[in-house]
Amino acid sequence: MAIDTVTWRDGKVRILDQTRLPTELVYRECGDWNGVAEAIRVLRVRGAPAIGVAAAYGVCVAAEKAADAATGADLLRALEPAIAGLAATRPTAVNLFWALTRMRGVLERDDVSSADADAARAALLAEADRILAEDRSMGEAIAGHGRDLIPENGRVLTHCNAGALATGGIGTALAVVVAAHHQGKRLLVYADETRPLLQGSRLTAWELEREGVDARVICDSAAGGLMARGEIDVVVVGADRIAANGDVANKVGTYPLAVLARYHGLPFYVAAPVSTIDLSIPSGREIPIEERDPAEVTRGALGRTAPAGVRAVNPAFDVTPADLVTAIVTDRGVVRAPYEVGLEAVVEGRA
Amino acid sequence: MAIDTVTWRDGKVRILDQTRLPTELVYRECGDWNGVAEAIRVLRVRGAPAIGVAAAYGVCVAAEKAADAATGADLLRALEPAIAGLAATRPTAVNLFWALTRMRGVLERDDVSSADADAARAALLAEADRILAEDRSMGEAIAGHGRDLIPENGRVLTHCNAGALATGGIGTALAVVVAAHHQGKRLLVYADETRPLLQGSRLTAWELEREGVDARVICDSAAGGLMARGEIDVVVVGADRIAANGDVANKVGTYPLAVLARYHGLPFYVAAPVSTIDLSIPSGREIPIEERDPAEVTRGALGRTAPAGVRAVNPAFDVTPADLVTAIVTDRGVVRAPYEVGLEAVVEGRA
Repeated sequence: MAIDTVTWRDGKVRILDQTRLPTELVYRECGDWNGVAEAIRVLRVRGAPAIGVAAAYGVCVAAEKAADAATGADLLRALEPAIAGLAATRPTAVNLFWALTRMRGVLERDDVSSADADAARAALLAEADRILAEDRSMGEAIAGHGRDLIPENGRVLTHCNAGALATGGIGTALAVVVAAHHQGKRLLVYADETRPLLQGSRLTAWELEREGVDARVICDSAAGGLMARGEIDVVVVGADRIAANGDVANKVGTYPLAVLARYHGLPFYVAAPVSTIDLSIPSGREIPIEERDPAEVTRGALGRTAPAGVRAVNPAFDVTPADLVTAIVTDRGVVRAPYEVGLEAVVEGRA
Repeated sequence: MAIDTVTWRDGKVRILDQTRLPTELVYRECGDWNGVAEAIRVLRVRGAPAIGVAAAYGVCVAAEKAADAATGADLLRALEPAIAGLAATRPTAVNLFWALTRMRGVLERDDVSSADADAARAALLAEADRILAEDRSMGEAIAGHGRDLIPENGRVLTHCNAGALATGGIGTALAVVVAAHHQGKRLLVYADETRPLLQGSRLTAWELEREGVDARVICDSAAGGLMARGEIDVVVVGADRIAANGDVANKVGTYPLAVLARYHGLPFYVAAPVSTIDLSIPSGREIPIEERDPAEVTRGALGRTAPAGVRAVNPAFDVTPADLVTAIVTDRGVVRAPYEVGLEAVVEGRA
């Protein structure tokens, strides 16, 4: 089921604060773009598609505040710091830049640039609403294309959270799983807890429980042993950015699952909207990988877990080479190798 | 450096409470065998060799309490519940059973069986002291055999804690790394934090800091990405039980590292004393794998990390097939494939 991850309400961006889940369901209203940027940075809102939606509405809230602008052109000048600030929050998920490029494109249109500021604000809001609406329909489309990849009685492994909470709609990878559940398939879903911030145990387990899907939380390091014991049939994950050659950047810990799936002869599926495909990036080597605060590993929300002064390394993402990916499920269909061809086709709408 | 992980003091077993590390250095005195069993069960003392030492002294403390026994034979009868209770604490590490078998063997000796109870108690204590002393010398021997496997400027990955805290001496896998450091090699050690109980970040990072070894804590799921980026040269881990064919049971998360090491062409070393080799077990399939409380994953020491009511699966160990193991470093030398031959040789002292 869809969750109001990010919505527009009374001139503010309303964000479900995912750092408080699963114990509390708290919404935050962001009345300026800095609040939206902070929410993205500290992962109150996370997941590539949801970040795109939040950034789009972040531009709208900045436009509300730009009271001095007389025209669309004035508004574009006034919004430059907001667009730059929102773009600087997180480097890996391409949907953020894609959404901001769309919002800027609205203000660069001749009719909007020359229009009065209120009309330009309305055009911005319409574009953000469109991004959210597309996000909702892309989730449905991904679920429709992907659900038949999940076998009856399937034991499914997923990592991090690629569900409704990661999008404005029903999700990507988790939407595939939930759609298979709605087909009447008996499923058992193993949710990697996903250290350091536990999006799997906090968010994915919470979503699966709401959907009535039988789920088990496991430590990330337990997935390999389950595969060896024949207890996993299929792996499905989301993506933060997909390079032109099919290399996939996703939450750290995705790549080892892909290697393990290959080693055990299991299918490894990536589910993501076309907006996650970045044809300007030839391969995963060029995808910028966010390094987050090492304190997320040594302290984080969990209290001190390592001696004071001990250093940590905390990459937020890793890259899975295309040759380990069985298929990429997009809102425009399922893409298989050679990915260069298939990804370009879905991006250009020829799929 | 050695740490007094488990010692005998004034008729009690003194155990460094590892659940309180790294923030507090607290010792607990166990005046009865139940206290020792509880300490093993909740991981106040952990690590296969250290569990063996603790169990041996646990028998001694039970012998102190058996005031009614007149002879060694009486003592054996009186100690049956203690031996059974200590054996029931944890199923995977073979050193526990090995140590208890040795302690029972003392009481079964004709000279001890017919001796008075005080003489039998002294014989038990001498055997436990011998197990501890052997544990200390096996660590030195493993370190001596293994240190040359660690390259100059090596970037070393380890999992869980196989250091002084896991033994009565200087450790196993971590002793190899520390010995290489003492050879003057510049090393960078990545310590997997090791969910759910964080022995890597709490214990291994603490030991490495005391030794002055440059260390970084990482989430377990980050190891694969580091390998892909060429930032790991060698993997060294301990073992809880090694089957006759070389299959290795060790902390959950070891097996995926072995698969990843193979995929990246990196050496994967296991360091363990001969007492960890169980020739009665033909392969890893027959090694009993402890399933621990799922609450360690969903609550544990870290507060609630998953929705109330969500189920979890919490295997404490996994099995790494021998074909993924580059070499096993024992106190009697380095064993390579075919393991059936080499392991039997070191167990029988023919290495």
